[in-house]
Amino acid sequence: MSRTISDSTVRRLSHYLRALEDLEAGGADSVSSDQLASRGGTTAAQVRKDFSHFGSFGKRGHGYQVCALASTLRTLLGLDSVWRVALVGAGRIGAALYRYPAFKARGYECTAILDNDPEKIGQRWGDRVIQSVTELEQVIPDQAIDLVIIAVPVSAAQEIAGRAVQAGVRGVLNFAPTRLRVPSSVPVTNVNLVIELEALSFALTREGGEA
Amino acid sequence: MSRTISDSTVRRLSHYLRALEDLEAGGADSVSSDQLASRGGTTAAQVRKDFSHFGSFGKRGHGYQVCALASTLRTLLGLDSVWRVALVGAGRIGAALYRYPAFKARGYECTAILDNDPEKIGQRWGDRVIQSVTELEQVIPDQAIDLVIIAVPVSAAQEIAGRAVQAGVRGVLNFAPTRLRVPSSVPVTNVNLVIELEALSFALTREGGEA
Repeated sequence: MSRTISDSTVRRLSHYLRALEDLEAGGADSVSSDQLASRGGTTAAQVRKDFSHFGSFGKRGHGYQVCALASTLRTLLGLDSVWRVALVGAGRIGAALYRYPAFKARGYECTAILDNDPEKIGQRWGDRVIQSVTELEQVIPDQAIDLVIIAVPVSAAQEIAGRAVQAGVRGVLNFAPTRLRVPSSVPVTNVNLVIELEALSFALTREGGEA
Repeated sequence: MSRTISDSTVRRLSHYLRALEDLEAGGADSVSSDQLASRGGTTAAQVRKDFSHFGSFGKRGHGYQVCALASTLRTLLGLDSVWRVALVGAGRIGAALYRYPAFKARGYECTAILDNDPEKIGQRWGDRVIQSVTELEQVIPDQAIDLVIIAVPVSAAQEIAGRAVQAGVRGVLNFAPTRLRVPSSVPVTNVNLVIELEALSFALTREGGEA
């Protein structure tokens, strides 16, 4: 398996998986590259090329087996793994994410919640007790945390990221609208609504183009 | 002003603006391209190149004027405009967005909320009453809506997008994890946490690389 699969390919694989899960739910056995292309916002040729990175899934003229292909994509995307997560920041974004059903369904298990607000520390969210962020260095190795979610203000984000990486996390999901500096071996995914809103606003100002 | 400014340039401009706003709050008058580069996760040369698209802002050796540059970036990004928004889908994501302070601060004014759930229709959120989604075609022209937010399940997202575009919206902010087909003149911004989670999971599986 090549290690040079682009981010945009990975995102298309996610879209194909969405389509396949819908088809599975509807009882379909097979699907054509045309059908997958239409759901992935791409072409049938691109679908075939994307899958060619990972070996041969379809038979010419017979389409793809829905169930087998969905299962292979889940494995490729790492969705049959369980990732142990520490959430730093028990504010509005942290709370929305903690309750977000797709989060757990994607194999993300939040085993620790940390905050620096004395009023929040000690509160319960479901079966978890919010801990002090000063315990970060202890929680990460003790709970074998894979991934830290940063849902703190911009001013604190870089410090938390640095401490978490130092303490051994393997990845970062960043909700603070700032770019984090971490070693290149640690993947960072940014989900920054403010940045998205500004990109859209820019596109609207210019009336046209894909934001 | 060139119309070919890339999406990644626009996102860097957003990051520079974050940095400038922090500096403004801290009372700084000028900033170097090095400082902006460090906040934007890029190089000083890239900062100078990004700003060169829009004319000359800095004097060699004197850095940039914080206040003037922030103001120019706000105008460039369309943040001094007000965008009238209809939110379709009064669920968890819709509610989080409706209360998100940065949303209003970025000039997005939500003037209508629509849903198809009879139990939700007629409820109040702040000073807005949730309307039936069947009123979409009436609300968009009546309220001069610029932008529709799609916060409905995947199965309904394309239909809502098509109807909204037909009724005259100029842009779409899509939270459903599917790619929408709309005319290329209508910018679409996708904020799909599931897709981001899968990209991160993929990167973690491969232990390394930027997700």
